[in-house]
Amino acid sequence: MRDINHFHFITFFLILSVFPSRANPQMTSNTPAGESSTGQVRLVDIPLKSVEIHDGFWSPRIEVNRTITLEHVYRELEQTGSIRNFDIASGKASGKFGGPWWSDSDVYKWIEGASYSLAKHPDPELEAKVESLIQRIAAAQQKDGYIDTFILVVEPDMRWRNLAFFHELFCAGSLFEAAVAHYEATGKRPLLDVAIKYADYIDSYFGEGKHDGIPGHEEVELALVKLYRLTHQPRYLRLAEYFVNKRGSKPSVFEEQYRLLPSPRAVELLGHQMDIKGFYKRFFLHDPSVFDTRYSQDYLPVRQQREAVGHAVRAMYLYSAMADLAYETGDISLLQALQSLHDSVTLRRMYVTGGIGPSEHNEGFTADYDLPNDNAYQETCASQGMILWNYRMLKLTGDSRYSNVMELSLYNALAAGVSLSGNTFCYVTPLANQGDMARQPWFGVPCCPTTIVRFLPSLGKYIYNQSSDGLWVNLYISSTIHTRIGNKDVQLQQASNYPWDGNVKLSVNGPGPEEFTLHLRIPDWCTQASVTVNGAVVHPVMSKGYAEIHRAWSNRDTLELSLPMQVQKLRANPKVLEDRGKIALKRGPLIYCLEQPDMAAPVDQMVIPTETKFEPEFEANLLGGTVVLKGQAMQKQSVDWHDVLYKPMADSPGLLTPTPITALPYCLWGNRGLAKMTVWIDSQP
Amino acid sequence: MRDINHFHFITFFLILSVFPSRANPQMTSNTPAGESSTGQVRLVDIPLKSVEIHDGFWSPRIEVNRTITLEHVYRELEQTGSIRNFDIASGKASGKFGGPWWSDSDVYKWIEGASYSLAKHPDPELEAKVESLIQRIAAAQQKDGYIDTFILVVEPDMRWRNLAFFHELFCAGSLFEAAVAHYEATGKRPLLDVAIKYADYIDSYFGEGKHDGIPGHEEVELALVKLYRLTHQPRYLRLAEYFVNKRGSKPSVFEEQYRLLPSPRAVELLGHQMDIKGFYKRFFLHDPSVFDTRYSQDYLPVRQQREAVGHAVRAMYLYSAMADLAYETGDISLLQALQSLHDSVTLRRMYVTGGIGPSEHNEGFTADYDLPNDNAYQETCASQGMILWNYRMLKLTGDSRYSNVMELSLYNALAAGVSLSGNTFCYVTPLANQGDMARQPWFGVPCCPTTIVRFLPSLGKYIYNQSSDGLWVNLYISSTIHTRIGNKDVQLQQASNYPWDGNVKLSVNGPGPEEFTLHLRIPDWCTQASVTVNGAVVHPVMSKGYAEIHRAWSNRDTLELSLPMQVQKLRANPKVLEDRGKIALKRGPLIYCLEQPDMAAPVDQMVIPTETKFEPEFEANLLGGTVVLKGQAMQKQSVDWHDVLYKPMADSPGLLTPTPITALPYCLWGNRGLAKMTVWIDSQP
Repeated sequence: MRDINHFHFITFFLILSVFPSRANPQMTSNTPAGESSTGQVRLVDIPLKSVEIHDGFWSPRIEVNRTITLEHVYRELEQTGSIRNFDIASGKASGKFGGPWWSDSDVYKWIEGASYSLAKHPDPELEAKVESLIQRIAAAQQKDGYIDTFILVVEPDMRWRNLAFFHELFCAGSLFEAAVAHYEATGKRPLLDVAIKYADYIDSYFGEGKHDGIPGHEEVELALVKLYRLTHQPRYLRLAEYFVNKRGSKPSVFEEQYRLLPSPRAVELLGHQMDIKGFYKRFFLHDPSVFDTRYSQDYLPVRQQREAVGHAVRAMYLYSAMADLAYETGDISLLQALQSLHDSVTLRRMYVTGGIGPSEHNEGFTADYDLPNDNAYQETCASQGMILWNYRMLKLTGDSRYSNVMELSLYNALAAGVSLSGNTFCYVTPLANQGDMARQPWFGVPCCPTTIVRFLPSLGKYIYNQSSDGLWVNLYISSTIHTRIGNKDVQLQQASNYPWDGNVKLSVNGPGPEEFTLHLRIPDWCTQASVTVNGAVVHPVMSKGYAEIHRAWSNRDTLELSLPMQVQKLRANPKVLEDRGKIALKRGPLIYCLEQPDMAAPVDQMVIPTETKFEPEFEANLLGGTVVLKGQAMQKQSVDWHDVLYKPMADSPGLLTPTPITALPYCLWGNRGLAKMTVWIDSQP
Repeated sequence: MRDINHFHFITFFLILSVFPSRANPQMTSNTPAGESSTGQVRLVDIPLKSVEIHDGFWSPRIEVNRTITLEHVYRELEQTGSIRNFDIASGKASGKFGGPWWSDSDVYKWIEGASYSLAKHPDPELEAKVESLIQRIAAAQQKDGYIDTFILVVEPDMRWRNLAFFHELFCAGSLFEAAVAHYEATGKRPLLDVAIKYADYIDSYFGEGKHDGIPGHEEVELALVKLYRLTHQPRYLRLAEYFVNKRGSKPSVFEEQYRLLPSPRAVELLGHQMDIKGFYKRFFLHDPSVFDTRYSQDYLPVRQQREAVGHAVRAMYLYSAMADLAYETGDISLLQALQSLHDSVTLRRMYVTGGIGPSEHNEGFTADYDLPNDNAYQETCASQGMILWNYRMLKLTGDSRYSNVMELSLYNALAAGVSLSGNTFCYVTPLANQGDMARQPWFGVPCCPTTIVRFLPSLGKYIYNQSSDGLWVNLYISSTIHTRIGNKDVQLQQASNYPWDGNVKLSVNGPGPEEFTLHLRIPDWCTQASVTVNGAVVHPVMSKGYAEIHRAWSNRDTLELSLPMQVQKLRANPKVLEDRGKIALKRGPLIYCLEQPDMAAPVDQMVIPTETKFEPEFEANLLGGTVVLKGQAMQKQSVDWHDVLYKPMADSPGLLTPTPITALPYCLWGNRGLAKMTVWIDSQP
């Protein structure tokens, strides 16, 4: 095994020597964590390079992403003109702008994904492809640092003038994330230099005493924090703070810009001429007498926000940035708002799959308990956003309520976002399918494929954390982590068949003995967890859903964690009208669904009696190997409700006939052609 | 028995001699009916005076209405100032206007109810009270015929200038209905003279080539048809047609008036100063860029309307008037629109109780299948509107789909609108109660009490119809009808225990034999109806849900109709999310509910297994005597869903324990103090 950890320390050393030391020593983040000034546990990231995944469930997906999806997405970005846009902007090519006006972000996200992949899997050909692309990007950067091909090519006089809908700051954020990823993976500076130049220009333009501005689509805030963490330049953190704190001011920045917008202003979106004011009407001026910016989470200053509103992806990026700022600055008022927002999402506005955003009309949140299944929107980017946000909440608090949600979103809503073949994607991810909806290879708005391509190879970031007292295991993904605890290099190896069973083995390798605490998340779905160390049962203290096993760990110490997976029949709060009288099946972290190919009778005629017991069964040849749930259900007669509002129910028992039922993990749905599918199943009460 | 029929013929003779003959002989209505020009059967009204009700279910209610409700409502109208408003308007009193701005209508509706009562039950004291009130009204009428105390007293310069919200035409309609009722009951003209003078003034003011106008709250249209039918003055019919046909024109009359409205315009409503423009904002200008008059059914010309929208009571009065006009003019295009509107209401927007209008925000229709139970609005006036409209649809078509709905609305939604004691009322009539909602003695907007007080004594109008070939029995209410068939006086006596059982006996008394057809509605809830005549089974032809028994009927012929009442477990179309996984119980025409006083376990913990059989049981001492339904249900454990979105369901069978269940007719709900109640009950599928 390659000494990843060693490589990481070299990188870290390089960073320290390249960048000046922090101007403001109180803004710490890369120091070992402990109690923050918020009185909360504060966990530290484990660099991607320090974690090696060798997992039965995730490794094949990551490999498909590397070998299929990266290439597939690149080809689409070329064909739709997203890449050529940079050449047009740099004057090296001519032609028509391609893709939506935030098309740059998809190119940056591809670079970010390629970089994560390179960090774990050197590939000179891919590295050269990335570098060539970076050169084309750099060539398009203006002297002052500005770079946004849509504005440069199509709307040169509109720079920064329509922040609500032109996505300059969103694209900037994607650039910064890509640049940090590329630098951390390769140690090479070209894209980072572009990013820094652009960030410095943005910083010179926006801020108190400069120009007012906030991004219409959040993301640049958390990207600036990433840039700060890499460069230790406090101005990036302060700019992120400015953007977060400015949000919700009255009058809205967006409203002020809107009033100055030339009218009419037609722009091309996906081949259609559209009136940019029409977007305002649709999203901010549905009631023309009220400039309502809930769509962009701009309705209140962030510290006063209590309800998750508007576009779900935007919300997730904002909340993630708020968590980053709370982490860096210890601002308790941000954490308090975030906890209310988390309640709003997870107690009232989240699908059982960990996805969010039920509605197509705003790609976002609607009302409490409004969670339709057939036409669930549940955008893949929003599912990824749940992981980003919950991971940051975990780092702030050490509370498993966040890592539990992270796991839920990861294994269900997010994992369903891409096919096993790696070349078709969900933008919309319904919880029920009439057999007329399939993943697509690409979309006019291709954010979801580029989100998949950048997220999957970064998965190693989310499995572990470190704190002043030891190591945290958040996710049960077979992997090896190399890190330094105290003064010693420690390697922890994790092995399991998760998510198919919950028997997890953790082995310590290192010079030892080294005294530290292993914090193991005990998932919320597990009621009978047990732990042995070197074969002896231990009874760990539980803290916020984490079992704490403190000892002087020696080389070859082995911890076995047993997380028995019962099949759970979940009910939804009766306020979720769409799920009334129904159950969803869950085993371990996986939500299950019924899909027609596994069923003897129509999916929508199934009724699960109270007493039905489901047995897990591993099917090695099904969709790459999966545990299905088998049980005995009842088939009800199909009832024709066409043009009938009420009808007497025949009470002959002949209406229900026994039939076998097989449930499939939701994340595997839709890999066998068009078929009916449902997560929520009629049940007997 | 008093010879009611004879009395009626005297009245009819008086009408013919007092009023000029019809100007347009094609506009017939009081002639014997047959196939109309629409190709539909056309049924004729039976005058209220020709029907004597002696029914176990309805007679006590009508008697309570006469002895308690009439007095109660009059007292409230006095105390709130509604009656004194007329004295202020006539200069005989001073003081502040009382009640809402359409307060006159409630006084007129009281007179209408008192008149129906007098028609069936002479009462010199009541008659004198009515006459004294009529004098006070007449004194307030202006020289030109105008009378609306709110405008006269509070907003004298606003006459006809704010038709959308000031209810001048609605009040006029109530006056006309009261005047017709009073004249038909007593043969006295004073109120009719007021009405005619006002109607003539309105006719001189509104119409093509005069002023544009339509009522914001429909009703005057059907009232004008009543006035036409009594007086045979075609101008009233034409004015009704004008109002109906003008609706939906662009720009809306309301929009044109709104633009001319002085601003700001504060008016007092129930003690609060309110900006009249605020009403426009709430009801017509929720999107200020679109003047949307769906609230008043003004969004399309009526013949193009296909979807029931807006304020439910207004819709019912409009549709009733459209049906009246189709009846009088044979306009098939009105009937076609009405049939679509009826589908919209009854197939997608109607409660299982026959009530309508789920939402408080517009007191009206929302979206298809949006039928919440806890916060059902289901206004009593709208339930009455369903009876008025469906009765008129029946008269146009001879189709039992309309009389079935009429029966449903009557026995359930409408009957639930008043307590057995006759002095408390539902404005809002929920289908589930958490135990915090009770009928009230009065309301700031008291339309529902005055609707009850005028509707119940008019019930005799809806039981029978006549056609060219005979008699129609729509409702199984024990009663005697005197009418003339061919050249002979015929008396038909109906006796049953309906709605407690479905055995109906009809006896013919008359000189006979007289050949005619008895058309008997076979209710849609009955699948095994049978008929005998003089003890011999007959197999009648069925036509549109009516059994046709044609014979030469002789004195003392007896028909026995058996309508077996099975207990039905109704399911709602799954698109009605609120009712998913639930059933409602129905027996005969009655919808049942669970109310806590009858139950051993909490109402909201009941689950009805598929196999549960319910047995009807007559409880003589319960709420005046009623059939309850008894069965064995299961009690589920109460689940605390506070701040939980999904939770695993324990699958131990111990969660469900058997418990007896007793269901009460919905119309009897709420007569025993505050208690939990529900119509829809959790069930096993």
